[in-house]
Amino acid sequence: MRKLDKVDLQLIKILSQNSRLTYRELAEMLGTTRQRIARRMEKLKKLGVIKKFTILPDLEKLGYMYAVVLIKLKPMADVDKVVSDISDIEYVKIIEKGVGRYNLIVHILVPKDLSGAENRVNEFLSNVKDIENVEVVFVSKVPKFEIV
Amino acid sequence: MRKLDKVDLQLIKILSQNSRLTYRELAEMLGTTRQRIARRMEKLKKLGVIKKFTILPDLEKLGYMYAVVLIKLKPMADVDKVVSDISDIEYVKIIEKGVGRYNLIVHILVPKDLSGAENRVNEFLSNVKDIENVEVVFVSKVPKFEIV
Repeated sequence: MRKLDKVDLQLIKILSQNSRLTYRELAEMLGTTRQRIARRMEKLKKLGVIKKFTILPDLEKLGYMYAVVLIKLKPMADVDKVVSDISDIEYVKIIEKGVGRYNLIVHILVPKDLSGAENRVNEFLSNVKDIENVEVVFVSKVPKFEIV
Repeated sequence: MRKLDKVDLQLIKILSQNSRLTYRELAEMLGTTRQRIARRMEKLKKLGVIKKFTILPDLEKLGYMYAVVLIKLKPMADVDKVVSDISDIEYVKIIEKGVGRYNLIVHILVPKDLSGAENRVNEFLSNVKDIENVEVVFVSKVPKFEIV
């Protein structure tokens, strides 16, 4: 992979704050040309450095909250199998494989009312085999959310 | 707040998959006009339903990984004070206030090498007062990351 240079990193930082900027605007901000920005954007997408252009919504305003499910699987469990079992569930939003007290940290989208949330968590857990230990944290507020 | 309708929710879903689509493209996808899309976008931004247009980068390709720091504060601790103490730290990316075994779930960006990561975690923890219990999970892989 070609090395990323300083301008690539600046571009990533700027796009993480506003991914709708046009090539022309980006070119002005970085003191370069539209063509050069277009080439860098192509490169970043092709290298997979930028995986997606997306939005940050206010979950609460959409009527949801996150439940973070912290899972320790049994020693012989197949973590990747579990990941593939849960990946396609629509309300499963973030899956992180970890090293430490928990093997998996899973963010699921749950209704804001507690009984709805509880049902959703139980329905989620019924999809996970070989759990040794699980903790559920309901997220009441997200004071900061940046990706990079 | 005006209610969000079905088209708003579709628009949010589409933008979460590609936030660079033009009003014209969005209008075609949703069978409406550019003007109507523009109005809906204004509404969603004004209501704060869309907080930011951003990108999803491949952290690993940028040379980083996440460490998830799970914190239980002492019973009398001021959670909001802790949040405000850590919010402005550049490498602190996601702060979630929770109800359950942990009060705070914090994603910090750490170098990929273990000793660099360890130093960063320790430096982060020196900013957090009144910890009763803490667990650190290093994220080795992120098999899924969607926001909504």
